[in-house]
Amino acid sequence: MKTQCLCVAAVLTVAAGAAQAQFQRAEDAVKYRQSALSVMGTHFSRIGAMANGRVPFDAAVAQENAAIVLTMSKLPWAGFTPETEKLPSKAKPAVWREMDKVKAAADRLMASTVALDAAAKTGNLDNLKKAFGETAASCKACHDAYRD
Amino acid sequence: MKTQCLCVAAVLTVAAGAAQAQFQRAEDAVKYRQSALSVMGTHFSRIGAMANGRVPFDAAVAQENAAIVLTMSKLPWAGFTPETEKLPSKAKPAVWREMDKVKAAADRLMASTVALDAAAKTGNLDNLKKAFGETAASCKACHDAYRD
Repeated sequence: MKTQCLCVAAVLTVAAGAAQAQFQRAEDAVKYRQSALSVMGTHFSRIGAMANGRVPFDAAVAQENAAIVLTMSKLPWAGFTPETEKLPSKAKPAVWREMDKVKAAADRLMASTVALDAAAKTGNLDNLKKAFGETAASCKACHDAYRD
Repeated sequence: MKTQCLCVAAVLTVAAGAAQAQFQRAEDAVKYRQSALSVMGTHFSRIGAMANGRVPFDAAVAQENAAIVLTMSKLPWAGFTPETEKLPSKAKPAVWREMDKVKAAADRLMASTVALDAAAKTGNLDNLKKAFGETAASCKACHDAYRD
């Protein structure tokens, strides 16, 4: 438990660093977060294909994709700047009214991708399935609440 | 020199793994490569802002951005699938006529981002400037030849 907390703390520190940097235009922030979420989704769905048996389990491929998902999961949040509230995107207005909840949801996702990466490294399909399911639940909860 | 070759070999192995996975639709491959290139560009430009003196040098921020650039640099190439040749994008038709050259250019970029990551880890601004310049030259060479 303590180890997991330390991992999460490390992830949040990195995410805070990424958020420091600014976007020249609000449109750039929207494009950035959409791009980061899209790349994350692509690699996450490749893990899903193995977890759900649509493609054969390959431990090395799972590990590689989980590492990319872990990196990507830290990035999108810096793009939800106040300046982007009125720009067209799938983000609901509630994002900006409930930014504390959004941040907590992002923290949960980042914690789940740390666990997903660790599960992938075990090379065990059952571990991967469990961690995939938990990460997918993180994605869905936030999409249900905050994405049109 | 030998160490550098080993690093490049490791990078290409990972890139080959990422390329294994397929896209459901050709449009997905285009969106994926554009998203990956966009995220890479955002983080690379943050290093550029420090290398060019537009923002103060912060070794930790440089290192964090270089690590993201390193990860991202392996990804876009899998999206240049044969099925995407006729889809609208900034990629010139020459990409598909000269795929061997494109792959060599991608390899050069991936080698330069390994060097950029190593330079950022030294915490020395002069090292970062040099590696940034060499990576930027890799980007530009490919954009000049293959991007409208």
